[in-house]
Amino acid sequence: MNTPNAVAEAYIQTWNETDTRQRDRLFRTSWTDDARYVDPMMRAEGAAQISGLVAAVHQRFAGFRFSLRGDPSGHGDYVRFSWALGPGAGEAPIEGTDVVKLIDGKIQEVIGFLDKVPATA
Amino acid sequence: MNTPNAVAEAYIQTWNETDTRQRDRLFRTSWTDDARYVDPMMRAEGAAQISGLVAAVHQRFAGFRFSLRGDPSGHGDYVRFSWALGPGAGEAPIEGTDVVKLIDGKIQEVIGFLDKVPATA
Repeated sequence: MNTPNAVAEAYIQTWNETDTRQRDRLFRTSWTDDARYVDPMMRAEGAAQISGLVAAVHQRFAGFRFSLRGDPSGHGDYVRFSWALGPGAGEAPIEGTDVVKLIDGKIQEVIGFLDKVPATA
Repeated sequence: MNTPNAVAEAYIQTWNETDTRQRDRLFRTSWTDDARYVDPMMRAEGAAQISGLVAAVHQRFAGFRFSLRGDPSGHGDYVRFSWALGPGAGEAPIEGTDVVKLIDGKIQEVIGFLDKVPATA
């Protein structure tokens, strides 16, 4: 998965997977074991901890799905893409942009930023 | 310089400085000695090498200036900001977004992406 699109899609797929075993399989396929994640609200080290973050987000935003916004771009081992998180119909309440660093084609580091948050978040 | 704005302004100031000695002073103030820089076209390791990149950009785009676009955002040791590079009047031909990682308040890593490039670039 070396194209920016493939990396972004694998990332979104991981974040949308509610089944823990399936999600852990996606982590093994597309992320390094020692992957790191940081955004304005969360931070995690290691695939297992990041998987826990994903579960927490599903719990907080039950039924919401991540989707890509615009076109992922990339160079070398870096990929940037924007996403939306919402119930799937109409405008998404939460949007962000992530920068991902790859090692051997796997996600090793995620630096996330929020572009839009609900006024009450 | 810990606010996202201060980091972004120090970064832009460094890139706009055409005097080598002045620029090296800005590197010592706002960047780590072993800072790394990568974007779709350039890569450099160490403040001295990055300073060389800046000089090369001034040579290629003589008279052009970097300016901030929008509001820098940040969390923890990470800052994101967007910039424009142009002759200063009218629409800038080149735009980008950089993500910066800080160590002890100094710029340690820059991951740059281009948002707009001239058709002939």
